[in-house]
Amino acid sequence: MTQLSEVSLLEFYRLRYCPSLPAILKNLKSCAIKKNSVFFDHINELTKLFPHLTALREVTIEAGVMQATELLRVGVLFSGGQAAGGHNVISGLYDALQSLNSRSQLFGFIGGPGGLVKGHSLEITGELLANYRNLGGFDLLGSDRTKLNSANEAKVLEHVQVLNLDGLIIIGGDDSNTNAAYLAEYFLDKKIKTKVIGVPKTIDGDLKNEKIEISFGFDSATKTYSSIIGNLARDVLSAKKYYYFVKLMGRTASNIALECALQTHPTYTLIGEEIAAENKSLECVVNDIVDLICKRSTDSKDYGIILIPEGLLEFISDSNQLFKELAKIDSVLLPNEISELLSPESRKCLYLFPEAIRQQLFLDRDPHGNLQVSKIETERLLMSMVEIQLEKRKLAGEYSGRFNPQPLFCGYEGRACCPSNFDANYCYALGHVAAVLIQNGLSGYMAAVQELAQPVENWKPAGVPLVSMMVFETRKEGSRAVISKALVDLGGKPFATFKEKRLNWAYGDEYRYPGPIQFFGPSELTEQMTFTLALESNKALV
Amino acid sequence: MTQLSEVSLLEFYRLRYCPSLPAILKNLKSCAIKKNSVFFDHINELTKLFPHLTALREVTIEAGVMQATELLRVGVLFSGGQAAGGHNVISGLYDALQSLNSRSQLFGFIGGPGGLVKGHSLEITGELLANYRNLGGFDLLGSDRTKLNSANEAKVLEHVQVLNLDGLIIIGGDDSNTNAAYLAEYFLDKKIKTKVIGVPKTIDGDLKNEKIEISFGFDSATKTYSSIIGNLARDVLSAKKYYYFVKLMGRTASNIALECALQTHPTYTLIGEEIAAENKSLECVVNDIVDLICKRSTDSKDYGIILIPEGLLEFISDSNQLFKELAKIDSVLLPNEISELLSPESRKCLYLFPEAIRQQLFLDRDPHGNLQVSKIETERLLMSMVEIQLEKRKLAGEYSGRFNPQPLFCGYEGRACCPSNFDANYCYALGHVAAVLIQNGLSGYMAAVQELAQPVENWKPAGVPLVSMMVFETRKEGSRAVISKALVDLGGKPFATFKEKRLNWAYGDEYRYPGPIQFFGPSELTEQMTFTLALESNKALV
Repeated sequence: MTQLSEVSLLEFYRLRYCPSLPAILKNLKSCAIKKNSVFFDHINELTKLFPHLTALREVTIEAGVMQATELLRVGVLFSGGQAAGGHNVISGLYDALQSLNSRSQLFGFIGGPGGLVKGHSLEITGELLANYRNLGGFDLLGSDRTKLNSANEAKVLEHVQVLNLDGLIIIGGDDSNTNAAYLAEYFLDKKIKTKVIGVPKTIDGDLKNEKIEISFGFDSATKTYSSIIGNLARDVLSAKKYYYFVKLMGRTASNIALECALQTHPTYTLIGEEIAAENKSLECVVNDIVDLICKRSTDSKDYGIILIPEGLLEFISDSNQLFKELAKIDSVLLPNEISELLSPESRKCLYLFPEAIRQQLFLDRDPHGNLQVSKIETERLLMSMVEIQLEKRKLAGEYSGRFNPQPLFCGYEGRACCPSNFDANYCYALGHVAAVLIQNGLSGYMAAVQELAQPVENWKPAGVPLVSMMVFETRKEGSRAVISKALVDLGGKPFATFKEKRLNWAYGDEYRYPGPIQFFGPSELTEQMTFTLALESNKALV
Repeated sequence: MTQLSEVSLLEFYRLRYCPSLPAILKNLKSCAIKKNSVFFDHINELTKLFPHLTALREVTIEAGVMQATELLRVGVLFSGGQAAGGHNVISGLYDALQSLNSRSQLFGFIGGPGGLVKGHSLEITGELLANYRNLGGFDLLGSDRTKLNSANEAKVLEHVQVLNLDGLIIIGGDDSNTNAAYLAEYFLDKKIKTKVIGVPKTIDGDLKNEKIEISFGFDSATKTYSSIIGNLARDVLSAKKYYYFVKLMGRTASNIALECALQTHPTYTLIGEEIAAENKSLECVVNDIVDLICKRSTDSKDYGIILIPEGLLEFISDSNQLFKELAKIDSVLLPNEISELLSPESRKCLYLFPEAIRQQLFLDRDPHGNLQVSKIETERLLMSMVEIQLEKRKLAGEYSGRFNPQPLFCGYEGRACCPSNFDANYCYALGHVAAVLIQNGLSGYMAAVQELAQPVENWKPAGVPLVSMMVFETRKEGSRAVISKALVDLGGKPFATFKEKRLNWAYGDEYRYPGPIQFFGPSELTEQMTFTLALESNKALV
């Protein structure tokens, strides 16, 4: 009999899944910290900002002698957008704390950093967690985008002291971990006992470096998107009449678009970082697509799939310049007045835009009068611009195909999906690492698990000083030390592999259909890693 | 090692999946046909159109004595939009023909009914099929929307005679099966040996009646959409800031929206058939949503998910009337001239539309000057109209929430997905049934498998006369006998269940997360049927 129960069968089974653990984390009471050296860029400038944190060394967690462990009181929160596996960081943390000392307590801050500032918390019990293990979303605690900074650090200090916390775990992206570093330094400066540990979260795949192989959520999100793109590819080959313009979530970096391309072999993929390196104009980007469509059309292929990273327009020189100029112009002016204030290049770029988007740029400001570039639907913008150029080529007798474009945005469904086994295991291990770091009195670290392309058994738990990942970035408010963002590395293996294959994909219709994430079945299927991770770890046969 | 191969691991395993077969179809050579009686509506009028087909009786396939079977030459084609499982109909047909007589041959028409009219065909071999078994899409043969009718039936006759076909299998929806009936009658009239058999295909779930429990593809499509909607529901509860307006593919009927609602328990679901029954205006539909949003907002719930069937606007009395009036007005007139020609009700309805959509209705005609209602993005239309009303209520002091709507169209990714085990098995059985019907010299039937809520072993193969499913419908060209479409039955169990629960879902945030289709694991998970089928078969506990 089929039951219309509140909990689906998949949830029922996922709630009962036992994540695999790296061997070293199976005996937490005998975990020991080994300090390694670490090379700091900008050490002098960073020392001024972080006198305590710059003294830290990278650590690995190794097998040591069994020790008695004190009870710990730990707080945890989600910061920013969701990524699959967040609940597993918390269940890993909870189980590790319990295993170290069963009298330990875990508290969650409700509604993200904003909840920490307000002191909204609840105790996370095993009973409560039982409803969230291995499931997607951040709904156990919620999240928000409040920035922890000098304006609210005193409030934060007050609330962690009220709860008498030994540790505070911040699960977030590059910005949230940057703020975690400043908070750790502040606590050390104030001689507060609360240790601050960050956990690398973001579907965007841009919180990544030599020590952090990937942030959690990237695996599940790219698998979810690739499943959808693969379905569309099958549709493309069957119906042979549509061009799908698929925009992929992922903020500035094109990491998600690149991984999805390696998974699905689409007709065309725009990689923002490459477009920036080649200093291409918007017109040139559009013409590249138009050339492809015209060439395919001579082979009677009036269909295809084009992948578009969310951050594309930031990488295109003239559109980026146009937005910068528009942002400085008073929004109460009339369209023709605005137009006259632009540089000739920007004016030209503006008039490449379809009327509707041009009007939107003139008029659709936020309540503070700010330009809302993120509201531009890049996939629709490109569709319209391509259509205009194809019409011109048709009139010039250079194209005689049919152009039926369909827009799609792959976004929210990928950040809140049920975590893949990879993310479920990775996050569960990250939660354990965070507990061990706190238990060893370490603050200002990011929990890390390395050698992720190995079997889970061999994964290496570690701690990476947050400041060791920092660079100085020029922002509105001046230069600021921040954790660096990983854009697509044009010299890296994932991009090189894509570059080698893309011409075949463009004309050969070599689509690949990864299908939906599988949680049961052959382990090579359920434990697949992303091509990005496999290629960066030299674990892929190409 | 991870391989960047052309074939994904999921495809690799699905290609090797062996569909389950009903017990009776495991020994094809001893299958016997049992003729049952059938009740015909409109028997007199139908007899004039179908003198041969109205003499047919419903048949079931039963165990009989082993028989020698002649070799058969059979043609097959896909008609219309894709539905998951199409390749399995063909592999079931191929395997059944081979099992009946290994010298039998199967031919596929390339590019749908259009390919049949042109005589484009290929022989389908086991080797060719090995690359398509249990995979989605129609890419083995392609498809199109050419209508088989009296204008091209002579061409069709010519091509089936060139190939010397004993049978022709048309895999299609209600329209394609209607045309299959006319073709079967024509062949019988012309004393051609080629038997015509239809197979019930459509994700929309509207090719369904007492004898046909469900069309193939509905199961996989609704599971694919429900997986996405479930992810959004998790996002909704985590971020607590968006209202998703999700339009669901499915043409006129709201069957898909209803099934997805039962799967995911969204905040609100519009069922077109209910709106039509209550004779609601567009303003009223919008106000219902606005009321819900306002009420949730008083509980600080400024988020939710609203499901919208693709065919919604056809069910709303005044918008439907407006479109009818607009369609009759010459498109070269100016907007204000057009506006003056409308009835007062239609003019009022038009001015409820946001400016952009109003302009689209005035100007965006197809090359023949026809109104393009299907181009209206209903999810965005409702978003805008709701936003306008919320602004009014805000000014009136009746609402103080934040409204962040996000549109999504769940469409093409659901029709070309990899078939669920249900669809893979169902289609494989349908292919077998088609072969047995041809082998028994039957024409003008739809292949059927009944008792689908039972284990596959107990499924009952049958043949249903195409004309027994017909009704007379008034179309542009006059009254025509067509296979009737199954809209949502407001007296049926699926709708009653939805109606009973929806108030809890609207305010209680009782979202349900079905997750992606699973192909491995516990059979209760991999063999789940839709709630629609379970409820209609009295197989669901509610």
